[in-house]
Amino acid sequence: MDKLTEELLKAVSDYTEGGYTGAFNIRENGGCAGRQSTDNIQIEGKADGSGIDIYIKAGTKGEKVFIPACVTRGNVSDLVYNDFHVGEGADVVIVAGCGVHTDDEGEAAHNGIHSFYLERGAKVLYEEKHLGTGEGTGQKKISPVTHVELAEDAVLEMNTIQLGGVDHSVRTTTGSLEDRAKLLIHESLMTDGDEYVMTDFDVDMNGEDSAIDLISRSVAKGNSYQEYHSKIKGNNRCTGHSECDAILVGKGRVNAAPELYAGHLDAELIHEAAIGKVAGEQILKLRTLGLTEEEAEQQIIEGFLRANG
Amino acid sequence: MDKLTEELLKAVSDYTEGGYTGAFNIRENGGCAGRQSTDNIQIEGKADGSGIDIYIKAGTKGEKVFIPACVTRGNVSDLVYNDFHVGEGADVVIVAGCGVHTDDEGEAAHNGIHSFYLERGAKVLYEEKHLGTGEGTGQKKISPVTHVELAEDAVLEMNTIQLGGVDHSVRTTTGSLEDRAKLLIHESLMTDGDEYVMTDFDVDMNGEDSAIDLISRSVAKGNSYQEYHSKIKGNNRCTGHSECDAILVGKGRVNAAPELYAGHLDAELIHEAAIGKVAGEQILKLRTLGLTEEEAEQQIIEGFLRANG
Repeated sequence: MDKLTEELLKAVSDYTEGGYTGAFNIRENGGCAGRQSTDNIQIEGKADGSGIDIYIKAGTKGEKVFIPACVTRGNVSDLVYNDFHVGEGADVVIVAGCGVHTDDEGEAAHNGIHSFYLERGAKVLYEEKHLGTGEGTGQKKISPVTHVELAEDAVLEMNTIQLGGVDHSVRTTTGSLEDRAKLLIHESLMTDGDEYVMTDFDVDMNGEDSAIDLISRSVAKGNSYQEYHSKIKGNNRCTGHSECDAILVGKGRVNAAPELYAGHLDAELIHEAAIGKVAGEQILKLRTLGLTEEEAEQQIIEGFLRANG
Repeated sequence: MDKLTEELLKAVSDYTEGGYTGAFNIRENGGCAGRQSTDNIQIEGKADGSGIDIYIKAGTKGEKVFIPACVTRGNVSDLVYNDFHVGEGADVVIVAGCGVHTDDEGEAAHNGIHSFYLERGAKVLYEEKHLGTGEGTGQKKISPVTHVELAEDAVLEMNTIQLGGVDHSVRTTTGSLEDRAKLLIHESLMTDGDEYVMTDFDVDMNGEDSAIDLISRSVAKGNSYQEYHSKIKGNNRCTGHSECDAILVGKGRVNAAPELYAGHLDAELIHEAAIGKVAGEQILKLRTLGLTEEEAEQQIIEGFLRANG
């Protein structure tokens, strides 16, 4: 495994010198750089080579599975399909970071198409960090596509963070929830320079007492542009909440378009959004503690993103 | 003037037996049923017959101008262009209700294309009520198109109410605001049966310290469907706030899609939305005071809409 890959893995997916404990699959420049299954978590390559299937046995508790992906050079455009089959009553953690790096003018791109099939009562905590690095002029792109199908009483909690350095990202999420299923998403996005990120979320609450809680926080610095569109659809007795807050710095711009569809009398849907720069009073307060204006702003922004998830 | 027209005028635009005081223009089934100018408010028919120009002299204070429109039978599809030229520092009230009525299977439709040009420091309170009546099977349609251009320090406050009985309505608003201009909108929409209403708002805050406050409240009863889309664009130092709240009754459905664009570091934009049915506790409380469930719900809904504007 490449030294660069190791560094990226440390930054995006809790990798240590000793490697991962438990099940894992490491994807490096479009190939497999390591794979391990456990008794409860089976990872299999798809017959056509397009990706992997992760089978988590019913009742599996307390295990973690790591499926990071890295691109370490230009002229690599990786596309992979990862399907997660999570058995009834399982309760696991999935760590799925992604790093893209280029030192040349070639584009480094990773597109992970993830499908989550959670059976009855299954519980998954999904953690994902995205990072772009390298001094090349090549575009660094990460565009995750996520599809979730949550059976009765299943709970999927997703904490996703774009740390920075990703030039272009389109983040698409679709899915559906059955009775009492819950989808909780905390998304934190940082852009700078000429970076662009688009979030597009469209999920149906079909089951009785299903619930979605979607919290997106973003910081748009430099000349970057972020677009946010969420569509939460309540087709049954259900509750939906979405919140998108953005901080502008410099010439950063944000367009936030959250959408709520209530197609049932007992759908309760709420949304809040706020866009603005860091409040002057906050900066002033930290400056009286000895910080420079830049340090104060940096500290406020970090707190804003860290508080999410 | 038709007896029906008189009744509609009373319902939608403060008409009394004595007629209107001050400037007015009454539109009835696509024709003019009365017009009066005053020293300060001049109403002129457009040369091509497509509508009227309303000229309000600079500095005019405390005057009201009435420009209601009615359609009282099927097979009338009225389209009219009304342009409001409001001079510097004027401070006036414009009352512009619309009623459509059909007792047969013919469609009764009114489409008012309104343009508001407010000069520096002008202030306008605009009031509009929409109503559909009659036992005919013909569709009753009212689709207002509103364009606003607010010069420095101009303030336009719009209170618009769809009382009920309108089968189909698309409400489009576009415009732009210069320095310190303010646009305040209170919209209240009531639909029932198979009625459909769509609000589409798209306004630019181009001026420094311009402001938009947009509050939409709606009640969707029966099998009706309401769509709401607002786009508030902050292109300068400015503040934007929008709020859309909807109450569902029966099989009523609502889609709310408010959009905020921050294209400037000092744009401060906020949005809230909530969709749901009337809270059970509220109904219970009123029932202990002797109201039936239906009366309690009715009272809560009326209060919800009345509190807006």
